[in-house]
Amino acid sequence: MKLATIKNGHRDGRLAIVSRDLTKAVYAGTIVDTMIEALENWHQVETPLRNRYALLNKGCLNEAFDFDPIKAMAPLPRCYQFVDASAFLNHGNIMEQAYNLDVKKEQTIPILVQRQSDDFLGARDDYTFPSEADNADFEGEFAVIVDDMPMGIGTEEAENHIKLVLTLNDMSMRTHLFRELQMGFGFINAKPATAFSPVAVTPDELGDAWHNGRVCLNMDVTHNGVRFGNPNGREMDFSFGQILSHLAYNRNLKAGAIIGSGTVSNTNWKEVGSACLAERRALELIEYGECRTEFLKYGDRLTFDVKGTDGRSVFGSIEHTMMPS
Amino acid sequence: MKLATIKNGHRDGRLAIVSRDLTKAVYAGTIVDTMIEALENWHQVETPLRNRYALLNKGCLNEAFDFDPIKAMAPLPRCYQFVDASAFLNHGNIMEQAYNLDVKKEQTIPILVQRQSDDFLGARDDYTFPSEADNADFEGEFAVIVDDMPMGIGTEEAENHIKLVLTLNDMSMRTHLFRELQMGFGFINAKPATAFSPVAVTPDELGDAWHNGRVCLNMDVTHNGVRFGNPNGREMDFSFGQILSHLAYNRNLKAGAIIGSGTVSNTNWKEVGSACLAERRALELIEYGECRTEFLKYGDRLTFDVKGTDGRSVFGSIEHTMMPS
Repeated sequence: MKLATIKNGHRDGRLAIVSRDLTKAVYAGTIVDTMIEALENWHQVETPLRNRYALLNKGCLNEAFDFDPIKAMAPLPRCYQFVDASAFLNHGNIMEQAYNLDVKKEQTIPILVQRQSDDFLGARDDYTFPSEADNADFEGEFAVIVDDMPMGIGTEEAENHIKLVLTLNDMSMRTHLFRELQMGFGFINAKPATAFSPVAVTPDELGDAWHNGRVCLNMDVTHNGVRFGNPNGREMDFSFGQILSHLAYNRNLKAGAIIGSGTVSNTNWKEVGSACLAERRALELIEYGECRTEFLKYGDRLTFDVKGTDGRSVFGSIEHTMMPS
Repeated sequence: MKLATIKNGHRDGRLAIVSRDLTKAVYAGTIVDTMIEALENWHQVETPLRNRYALLNKGCLNEAFDFDPIKAMAPLPRCYQFVDASAFLNHGNIMEQAYNLDVKKEQTIPILVQRQSDDFLGARDDYTFPSEADNADFEGEFAVIVDDMPMGIGTEEAENHIKLVLTLNDMSMRTHLFRELQMGFGFINAKPATAFSPVAVTPDELGDAWHNGRVCLNMDVTHNGVRFGNPNGREMDFSFGQILSHLAYNRNLKAGAIIGSGTVSNTNWKEVGSACLAERRALELIEYGECRTEFLKYGDRLTFDVKGTDGRSVFGSIEHTMMPS
């Protein structure tokens, strides 16, 4: 099942079901109004929503309309908890090597970053920030959304609470990131608003590509129309279940919590490239002794897309332009 | 005006107006259902709520009932963004001296920590955590709640968006805190759920004690019935306006965002004591060469109360017991 939230002037938008091929949509109608309500009542609404999804895919719903990603908010336009992991250790290893960082991470504990969740952007919204001197960067990531999870839950059980999968661009302001990393209390100015794919999908939509709590598909990234990278999600060093279990050690997670994977990064980066500028710059620094790629400028265009095993876009693409705030 | 949220089996509870002396309450009735809705529509609801508050204080409302803090959820039981500052530099200075820490903070930039906001506890709820070995600690703090604030807002303008003031116990698991501080990506297991005072008040309720964007009142803390400390909020090194302006540099803040002050800490600690165990332990380490105070045990009881200039409780007290999860 594929779900989106359509702009309607309200903070939580209006829940819509989107056809598997992303061409058609229909409002959830009398089942439930918003995505957050759906997640809070997943056991009640899942079957009726899936039934309606089946009818939509068969072309049986007269009230269906063309799905336009421009009209989509983030699938969850806001939520109560967003945690972004750094679960591709390859990325951290490259950054540490290039910049001689000494991150005291432990191999059994994923790096997690608590993030704000009050102002998510839709997939086609302009991305605004106050200064190019902030060294804006993107990070292509996978993410999951869960329903209510109790404190102390184990890895396997945690994975059963993953109701939806989506992608995000974790925009990062590198000028602030290095300063805030040194302070050691997490990110504030380094991590402004996050943009999400137009559609979130249930894990079964991924077929065999949802494996071991990971999305084993390529994250195709372009920058100003040029291919930037297409690393695969299968190299995630911690599964989403492991991340969730670590996070829930001493906290309850409430419906709608979003967990990001961290920037997708592969060991065969020479073939597949990267999903963020900082990693490419770090690889340039290691290889050539200097960074050759610049950070984002106003007017720069980015796209993030993930194709399923059938070659079709799974989540719809994030496509946005950098703009002054 | 004083506001509380009464438990009613729903995630956001039911908004109530509480009398100045904290003895009586009345539901907001037809004005607005929940605290988050009130904050999202503050300009529309403030005057009707204040009118009802005036009638409640005069004893003119037949539907008023006795206010029982046990029935109160956190004033905002959940919200979309919670950021905790460390705005009393005295606390950080003591910790750094005791443990030879080298925190690369800047004097003009407040330390801010992004926090989860999906599972706040009411003032009288038991506080549960999985292991005493986590070295549980409390931190008595002041906090503010804002309405919608645009990116790039200045300090003075930011202060005008502060709609409510309250207190919180920022529970901290010190075993995890030192590990996570070394990793440098903020707090996860170190900072589980936060508990708030039963009542949130508009800044005018503080009279002259709301000064320079600070709450200039004592935070009275007891541990197992014994006075622990009563440091004053006036020594905050950054005002709430300064914190908000820094935070909003490149992000919009949405209605209901909560900003904490950090543990209240004064330079005359010999007279006023501390608002957290870690600080007292650090002072013991400096003075005696060893920590003499233990971390929290199951069954330990804590209270946090703030008296106004009239000697009466302003926010109602947080009073809770540590329990195994």
